[in-house]
Amino acid sequence: ADRAAMARAQARQAQLTKPAGALGDLETLSVRLAGVFGSEQPAPQGAAVLVAAGDHGVAQDSVSAYPPEVTPAMVMNFLTETRAGPGGAAVNVLARTLGARVYVMDAGVDAELPTHPALHRAALYQGEQRRGTRNLRFEAAMSPEETYALILAGAALARRAIEDGADFIVPGEMGIGNTTPAAAITARLLGLDAAEVTGRGTGVDDERLAHKVGVVREALGRSPVTDPIAVLAEFGGFEIAAMLGMMLETAAQRRVIVLDGFVEGSAALVGTALCPQMGDYLFPAGHCAERGHAVQLAHLGLKPMFDLGLRLGEGSGGVLALPLLRAAAATLREMQTFEEAGVPG
Amino acid sequence: ADRAAMARAQARQAQLTKPAGALGDLETLSVRLAGVFGSEQPAPQGAAVLVAAGDHGVAQDSVSAYPPEVTPAMVMNFLTETRAGPGGAAVNVLARTLGARVYVMDAGVDAELPTHPALHRAALYQGEQRRGTRNLRFEAAMSPEETYALILAGAALARRAIEDGADFIVPGEMGIGNTTPAAAITARLLGLDAAEVTGRGTGVDDERLAHKVGVVREALGRSPVTDPIAVLAEFGGFEIAAMLGMMLETAAQRRVIVLDGFVEGSAALVGTALCPQMGDYLFPAGHCAERGHAVQLAHLGLKPMFDLGLRLGEGSGGVLALPLLRAAAATLREMQTFEEAGVPG
Repeated sequence: ADRAAMARAQARQAQLTKPAGALGDLETLSVRLAGVFGSEQPAPQGAAVLVAAGDHGVAQDSVSAYPPEVTPAMVMNFLTETRAGPGGAAVNVLARTLGARVYVMDAGVDAELPTHPALHRAALYQGEQRRGTRNLRFEAAMSPEETYALILAGAALARRAIEDGADFIVPGEMGIGNTTPAAAITARLLGLDAAEVTGRGTGVDDERLAHKVGVVREALGRSPVTDPIAVLAEFGGFEIAAMLGMMLETAAQRRVIVLDGFVEGSAALVGTALCPQMGDYLFPAGHCAERGHAVQLAHLGLKPMFDLGLRLGEGSGGVLALPLLRAAAATLREMQTFEEAGVPG
Repeated sequence: ADRAAMARAQARQAQLTKPAGALGDLETLSVRLAGVFGSEQPAPQGAAVLVAAGDHGVAQDSVSAYPPEVTPAMVMNFLTETRAGPGGAAVNVLARTLGARVYVMDAGVDAELPTHPALHRAALYQGEQRRGTRNLRFEAAMSPEETYALILAGAALARRAIEDGADFIVPGEMGIGNTTPAAAITARLLGLDAAEVTGRGTGVDDERLAHKVGVVREALGRSPVTDPIAVLAEFGGFEIAAMLGMMLETAAQRRVIVLDGFVEGSAALVGTALCPQMGDYLFPAGHCAERGHAVQLAHLGLKPMFDLGLRLGEGSGGVLALPLLRAAAATLREMQTFEEAGVPG
């Protein structure tokens, strides 16, 4: 990030017509946005939520409250025409209400999905994209080639959204079973036990949660990898790799990554392990009710903006944060200084 | 509120395409909005922030970090033309960014303010509006006539904003010294000691805070009143009375009151003491850094949406909450049900 622009933004906040610090975290956010956009008066424009969908071998292993068939059904829900507009899922509705464009990506869904202008496909260099990862409990979820292909596909979709005008990128995901690989990645990268980072996902009961913790523990016990990309490949999943690519590309292009929940957080941990400067571009949206999210944010050293008890994924929480980020940037651009306004400071 | 509409909204949330409860507090907010608007698919339209400004006799008593001259200077800042549009204060910028109309009210500012189309004036039935309250440390801050006149003026401005299309009303305030009467009102209505509800306002140091607590304690010791309107009159101020009128009118017209910070909260305490049903229409925006705000919300039994450490007033926090409320309502209107989307529930 541009430290000089951040220093100028900090100085400007102190001159704006309000008691020093009275806009609280909005001031901190505005200074970070100045760093991202290299201006003490940042003027971010469009926003895009990129929802990557993938299936998981481990979903056959009773780790979720929902069957894997929900993944393709929700992809169709992201794309369907409704009376209100395209898409009938939460992320569509929030994006429509708050001014973000939705891009959907088939990162490896276990179904024949129809061609649709808003559905982007990940493609391997050779051969077909696998429909769902292998079961991380027993074997590596993804091959190195699959991992890199998905990272590149995610990066390409972020580039496309940025070319379409997005200055805010919200990586989002859909994949029944995906809090299991996210927990394994988080545990390994942060050196924590499976039980500390494995939560109820879409809402499993105590018995299934205990089973899920056991599955994560078995996966961790199976492989000693610690290299960030190797950890990602070992535990999966396709949509997490795609979100990593989105994040790296967004940071490289000096745009804002709005960080949603726990699965997104696992991609962010891989990204900052590879490239610590990526953290300058990460803006966590809200506290997420999924166990393990808080330790991710603590590790990233970032404070989220709200606590609404969300645990949906899809990038939905990230979309809710967009107005707060737009407002933070606007204070630097549009508020008058004490001198301009003739207010006694 | 319409309990039947709330029950229908609750049932609808359970059918929408997401894990049960995964939208967290957004679901609770959507159900409350259904109650306000009497529909399980609430469609609120416009939003208005009504900033009442007033001066305070107690501001001569070293309770604030700023001189009283800041009140009229900030009113002018609310009204001034800038390159970005009308108004150069935080509330103007946030309202412009997030889609709310700003109305400014002279509720008794100690200055000759110019005529301006966006500046609304409170008028007594007979005689001139007093420029600033009396010092609550030594005498009743407002007469009963002044108190009722300001309540009616606030109600009239809310009615005007609703006629102009607002379904969300954000009462806001500007008045150097006004956390002092707000603390006295809060202490008396909740039966708390001055020290428990008196904070740093715009940012006084330890010594001035101790003095401010003493001023609040003297005011409380001076008068034993407990009737809510008598408490309001005794401790002031004009803009708090105006905000009470805005709140009562907004609830009576079945619109949403977006509750900002501590001074606004003191008006809400008076309002719910007079009329407990008003609580159904109150939607607290964010945690406010001012001491005493948390006990107000605990008393009202309401949970705010975010924690950004704001302590500015002006209704600025309330404006930031508008997109979240719009998003909550939109989930009920626009998300598909499991049946509509053909998603296995």
